[in-house]
Amino acid sequence: MTTTDTPAQWTAARVDELRLATRAFIREEVIPRELAPGAYIDEELRALLQAKAREAGVFAPQVARAFGGLGLPIEHWSTVFQEAGYSPLGPLALNCMAPDEGNMHMLAEIATPQQQEAYLRPLAAGDTRSCFGMSEPHPGAGSDPSALRTTAVRDGDGWRISGEKRFSSGAIGAGFAIVMAMTVEAGSSAATMFLVPMDAPGVRVGDALHTMDRAIIGGHPHVHFDDVRVPGDAVLGAVGQGFRYAQVRLGPARLTHCMRWLGLARRAHDIALDRAAARELFGSRIDALGIAQGLLADSVIDIETSDAIIARTAALLATDSRAGTALSSVAKVHCSEAIVRIVDRSMQLVGGDGVSEHLPLASFFAEVRPFRIYDGANETQRWAIARRAAKARAREREAGEPARDELRRWEGGDA
Amino acid sequence: MTTTDTPAQWTAARVDELRLATRAFIREEVIPRELAPGAYIDEELRALLQAKAREAGVFAPQVARAFGGLGLPIEHWSTVFQEAGYSPLGPLALNCMAPDEGNMHMLAEIATPQQQEAYLRPLAAGDTRSCFGMSEPHPGAGSDPSALRTTAVRDGDGWRISGEKRFSSGAIGAGFAIVMAMTVEAGSSAATMFLVPMDAPGVRVGDALHTMDRAIIGGHPHVHFDDVRVPGDAVLGAVGQGFRYAQVRLGPARLTHCMRWLGLARRAHDIALDRAAARELFGSRIDALGIAQGLLADSVIDIETSDAIIARTAALLATDSRAGTALSSVAKVHCSEAIVRIVDRSMQLVGGDGVSEHLPLASFFAEVRPFRIYDGANETQRWAIARRAAKARAREREAGEPARDELRRWEGGDA
Amino acid sequence: MTTTDTPAQWTAARVDELRLATRAFIREEVIPRELAPGAYIDEELRALLQAKAREAGVFAPQVARAFGGLGLPIEHWSTVFQEAGYSPLGPLALNCMAPDEGNMHMLAEIATPQQQEAYLRPLAAGDTRSCFGMSEPHPGAGSDPSALRTTAVRDGDGWRISGEKRFSSGAIGAGFAIVMAMTVEAGSSAATMFLVPMDAPGVRVGDALHTMDRAIIGGHPHVHFDDVRVPGDAVLGAVGQGFRYAQVRLGPARLTHCMRWLGLARRAHDIALDRAAARELFGSRIDALGIAQGLLADSVIDIETSDAIIARTAALLATDSRAGTALSSVAKVHCSEAIVRIVDRSMQLVGGDGVSEHLPLASFFAEVRPFRIYDGANETQRWAIARRAAKARAREREAGEPARDELRRWEGGDA
Amino acid sequence: MTTTDTPAQWTAARVDELRLATRAFIREEVIPRELAPGAYIDEELRALLQAKAREAGVFAPQVARAFGGLGLPIEHWSTVFQEAGYSPLGPLALNCMAPDEGNMHMLAEIATPQQQEAYLRPLAAGDTRSCFGMSEPHPGAGSDPSALRTTAVRDGDGWRISGEKRFSSGAIGAGFAIVMAMTVEAGSSAATMFLVPMDAPGVRVGDALHTMDRAIIGGHPHVHFDDVRVPGDAVLGAVGQGFRYAQVRLGPARLTHCMRWLGLARRAHDIALDRAAARELFGSRIDALGIAQGLLADSVIDIETSDAIIARTAALLATDSRAGTALSSVAKVHCSEAIVRIVDRSMQLVGGDGVSEHLPLASFFAEVRPFRIYDGANETQRWAIARRAAKARAREREAGEPARDELRRWEGGDA
Repeated sequence: MTTTDTPAQWTAARVDELRLATRAFIREEVIPRELAPGAYIDEELRALLQAKAREAGVFAPQVARAFGGLGLPIEHWSTVFQEAGYSPLGPLALNCMAPDEGNMHMLAEIATPQQQEAYLRPLAAGDTRSCFGMSEPHPGAGSDPSALRTTAVRDGDGWRISGEKRFSSGAIGAGFAIVMAMTVEAGSSAATMFLVPMDAPGVRVGDALHTMDRAIIGGHPHVHFDDVRVPGDAVLGAVGQGFRYAQVRLGPARLTHCMRWLGLARRAHDIALDRAAARELFGSRIDALGIAQGLLADSVIDIETSDAIIARTAALLATDSRAGTALSSVAKVHCSEAIVRIVDRSMQLVGGDGVSEHLPLASFFAEVRPFRIYDGANETQRWAIARRAAKARAREREAGEPARDELRRWEGGDA
Repeated sequence: MTTTDTPAQWTAARVDELRLATRAFIREEVIPRELAPGAYIDEELRALLQAKAREAGVFAPQVARAFGGLGLPIEHWSTVFQEAGYSPLGPLALNCMAPDEGNMHMLAEIATPQQQEAYLRPLAAGDTRSCFGMSEPHPGAGSDPSALRTTAVRDGDGWRISGEKRFSSGAIGAGFAIVMAMTVEAGSSAATMFLVPMDAPGVRVGDALHTMDRAIIGGHPHVHFDDVRVPGDAVLGAVGQGFRYAQVRLGPARLTHCMRWLGLARRAHDIALDRAAARELFGSRIDALGIAQGLLADSVIDIETSDAIIARTAALLATDSRAGTALSSVAKVHCSEAIVRIVDRSMQLVGGDGVSEHLPLASFFAEVRPFRIYDGANETQRWAIARRAAKARAREREAGEPARDELRRWEGGDA
Repeated sequence: MTTTDTPAQWTAARVDELRLATRAFIREEVIPRELAPGAYIDEELRALLQAKAREAGVFAPQVARAFGGLGLPIEHWSTVFQEAGYSPLGPLALNCMAPDEGNMHMLAEIATPQQQEAYLRPLAAGDTRSCFGMSEPHPGAGSDPSALRTTAVRDGDGWRISGEKRFSSGAIGAGFAIVMAMTVEAGSSAATMFLVPMDAPGVRVGDALHTMDRAIIGGHPHVHFDDVRVPGDAVLGAVGQGFRYAQVRLGPARLTHCMRWLGLARRAHDIALDRAAARELFGSRIDALGIAQGLLADSVIDIETSDAIIARTAALLATDSRAGTALSSVAKVHCSEAIVRIVDRSMQLVGGDGVSEHLPLASFFAEVRPFRIYDGANETQRWAIARRAAKARAREREAGEPARDELRRWEGGDA
Repeated sequence: MTTTDTPAQWTAARVDELRLATRAFIREEVIPRELAPGAYIDEELRALLQAKAREAGVFAPQVARAFGGLGLPIEHWSTVFQEAGYSPLGPLALNCMAPDEGNMHMLAEIATPQQQEAYLRPLAAGDTRSCFGMSEPHPGAGSDPSALRTTAVRDGDGWRISGEKRFSSGAIGAGFAIVMAMTVEAGSSAATMFLVPMDAPGVRVGDALHTMDRAIIGGHPHVHFDDVRVPGDAVLGAVGQGFRYAQVRLGPARLTHCMRWLGLARRAHDIALDRAAARELFGSRIDALGIAQGLLADSVIDIETSDAIIARTAALLATDSRAGTALSSVAKVHCSEAIVRIVDRSMQLVGGDGVSEHLPLASFFAEVRPFRIYDGANETQRWAIARRAAKARAREREAGEPARDELRRWEGGDA
């Protein structure tokens, strides 16, 4: 495993220095290059922004120093990623945007040194991009990975992969994919992850499937794997451990989404505060000001509670990956809903301009709204959260805790 | 006043016949012609759709028969407008879209027979379009009309109008504007409405100001009136009565927005129901189904309560315009928020496809979201609603009702 | 069937006269007799209040004139019941409180003339009280009546009833119960309703089971039926039709709850308005006033939408009982939640006094909160509402409507 | 200042040991002694519970060891206080209930050694109780302390205090009060805090003013100070520093409320989970189960986000009192609303029993609901939060940050 620095190596002062450098970079280099609502990011802009970030010394903060990054440990990502997320282009500029950021994290945790040289190094440098092939068209693996229909069968010392993936964010123009496929060993089937170059024969990217957001470069297309042959060392980690690795990726990946988009929500909130300072709210007269204060306060509460649950989850992920991943569900649901509310309130506070294309609020909304669905729809997360709570409570009862729902008659009470 | 038919002329059976004809028309002629997300409607499409609506016998339902409409009274508009609103293009096809529909209503109520011939007839026929010049750039009339800065001064037997309007929905390509301007008569100033041809010297339409919605043809630009001369018969109704007329327009205009967009919300809800029937919700596995039922039920509740408050408000507008306009604030706030919730829930229920551009849900959301701001931001409406409630209660106290907040000690109680 | 008057017999003026008489009666005779928080109503108070209501000419408004009532048709109940509900004691005073009101309605609809004389007449006169035996302890009939475990078997020309009912509101001190029991005829089992005197041998009322509310006299105890013999004419309506009759009772009973408690919510809202007029809100300084206006406006919106959906449902119940009962689910969920919100907001607006026992707000809250559970918990209602919506949509698809969730590719679009 | 231990003195293992001891104590000694709904705690019960807590080694965890407590630092209070709060009687048993806990904290921070011996020692030992005299009847100091009308004037080497306080929680039976009064020194007035024995001549406790909650012993009465003479050393801290000290008390006091009541919310949530395990939800059939999972998940999210913001605020209070107090507003609003929602959801999940007096949920609700009002109504807090956000943003703009709400025209865009 190739690690970032330890938390002890990053004093509060050092973290704050990086935060401020990132903040300045976003304001000076990134915000002026933001695109018109609805426009797509192209590779040229990506290259330019990443070159500027490298110059500014803020590139790849979350990547280990051995691979050209700044080595920032996960406990401090939120501080920096929120600053990056203040612009929809910021995370891409810093090379900490999905799906590459999650893929880098997984490669650092699981890949062999040779795989890291071949895949992680150019990815961390921004020399290539990647995608993650997990979701499949109905009735394959949706948010339920166990329905996986893509298969990999042994072929000499290599493998042959066949299947179709959908919502392969970033696939157009990506250099390689990390693909989850079912493998059968000793008669039992399990999932395995493979590193697949996108130019391997048999890989075909389908039509771009566009969604309302724009900040992820490379679309969300279907990718077809038609009998794609990969060598034996294309297996990422161990055969049959794919689901476990997917969990390794999932917790932090969900949480970094929270971090980046919370940064964007802060921008929306600042826009509303700036407009409020100009005393024209809801495009409207000042009488409704108190209602505005209520909305602004609700946004502060959403920001602070999101910030707190992110920090707690990041700390937990660093010390107890399993508990951290479980808590990342809670963080994901809370933050994604809080972020959407913040941006929505800001649109409302600004009034007519808030839904115009001359302020970026409507496009910020389009950017953050899908997060309530991505990485496991919030309703699916709620189902999982409730199930975990029920199981944890059942374990308590099994350990002797009495059920607390027994009816009681009160002595001397008239009830 | 040029009226529609009386309610008695429209039996339930006749209303239902028109409803079904509208429903069939929307499905057969309008939905297949819907545009890609983000695309703008052009005049050619408008002409085609309106020609088809005329053929289908569903054109201009709300317009008096004397002016080529179907004469449907306001009590029944909701039934038909909701069917029209099932497509974002439907109300335009039927020529019952804002701002023309509201302008037609006001012309029917207030204009002279000559003005009606010159302006209402071609507007009702779809031969021209119109805009309504009320909102002004800060610090002019925003949602507070009394800050009006556009002026009209007498010039011989005519007037000269100067000022700037913003958010002039539909202005690009419009044939005429109804413009609110301050006039001074006998030393006291008041607002007066004027009918101004858009090709009159001095009228200049500014840059298109685009918002996230697309269903209103003609943009929301600024319109400049630079010393525009109009004849004496350009005054709409009486001099100095502009604010009163604005109220006449406002109540029904707000309510027809509720009707049209509730139709669109029904479409979003149907999409979610259809997807639910295919058992794939939130892009996700079936376990979360119960949560889905909760969301679907909430949408039904939002639809039914919106429908009920619209019907009640429409009935009240027909019998007591002042009370109806007051209740239209309540209806506007409830319906605009309910409609946004319904579309949002449907996006969520459908999952990844729900935020893609291959289902229209994200663009429906863009269509309905601004309604929480348009026609008086909901927060401003809440301020007005609270103020009216406080005044009504004060009148009750003045009439002898005791204040009910007095503290009380209970005999024999221990409290 | 013994009916109330037709709507045509009640002009708006006549309804308003009764509304004002009820309003005056509540203020003059009922509010001064309200009890300390937590106190229970006794029979003496009931007798006094009902005598006063009779004197004031407002007693039993919803009862047919043949049985001593005012004959008010269901379309106008809401107007009067809301006035009655302005005090928690008001509906009892007018003899239109649950469960008696629902039982009277069912007796009027279903009972034989002899049964009406024996049971409806004294109940309508306030000479006795009644209860409704439907819910059973787990695993019997909860909100799912089909799990019914109470049985009635033929015994000569009569029946023998055995079983246990819970949440038998009003049972303590009641004269008779309407009991739902499974009967087996010709080999197939169905539910049948029976009229059972509470002093019949084998009827035993369990301990009082108190809930947080106080306005229903007679507790919510378990009632045991131990081989209770009743004559053949104890069957209410036809054998085997119990579930159908339960539906007859259910729709109006749910809706009259909405009416009565909406009246109480209006009282809470008035308390908040009166306190707001004194400019001390949240027990706090005036700066937060705008937030207060937002809360007050939300209460107005909740009141008006509740009022509108109640009126619509009542009208539908009068013309299409099945559709009305379905819509009563929607009304019940919306109104019960709106009413709780209104009372909660009023507590909040008033501040410390709002949670003290010197204003009735906390006890009003205790009165209305259970309604989100009573008469079918709102979550169960949501499940039923969603299921009905899904079925209705399925019928549309079967009738040729295409599924609207098909993905679409746009010609010429870049998406 | 008399401090608790440093965080370093409390390892995770040691904190967990205390947590488990508290947990066991609450279950074994406290829950069995809980009172019937509506019953008041008496001094006998308090003495018994505190004796048991002393025996169990869990008494006064937050008090410095020098004064007989366990010395737990504020960073770890939440863990233990939540366990204590699992019963409404728990915090009283541990002597960490309001208002004594906040008063102890202030005495530890501000009082002289002599004052600490005279007042803190017996209070920490549970030998006496105290109250805090801040709020006054309208138009005095409500949540706005600057309107303070109680005065203290120099009288020889002592002072004479006159005024009236309201909502003096715990006053009945208290040994002393900490009273805020206006003092005038060198011509300028400021607030000063005084230690006043409740048996000093001129102190008079008014009628008990009961609120819906029961867990604070000693009522919430008015207290009258009629020319009460106190010696010079009755001044707590420095003359004129009363407002500053009130802030010292306020932040932690608000936060410990969050901790204690979050523990009670966890109990309510456990009750719902236990009932859910028995598969009977909403008093209803299993079909609605998914909706139940949604509610349970929402409660988990509320618990975890509350826990996270409490921990963050406690840590901040320990290092930056001013910033911690500001954040405590956010924590207070979020937690108080989350806690009420959790208890409300649990009532709903349990169904009819949930609103009965045979489960404690309705009385838990009565316990937690006032917290949305106590310690500064949430709406007042929102006003303050919004104002702080506006000021912070204004400082950023003054430091060079551009206003972000400027309209922008996009080159090459069609918008």
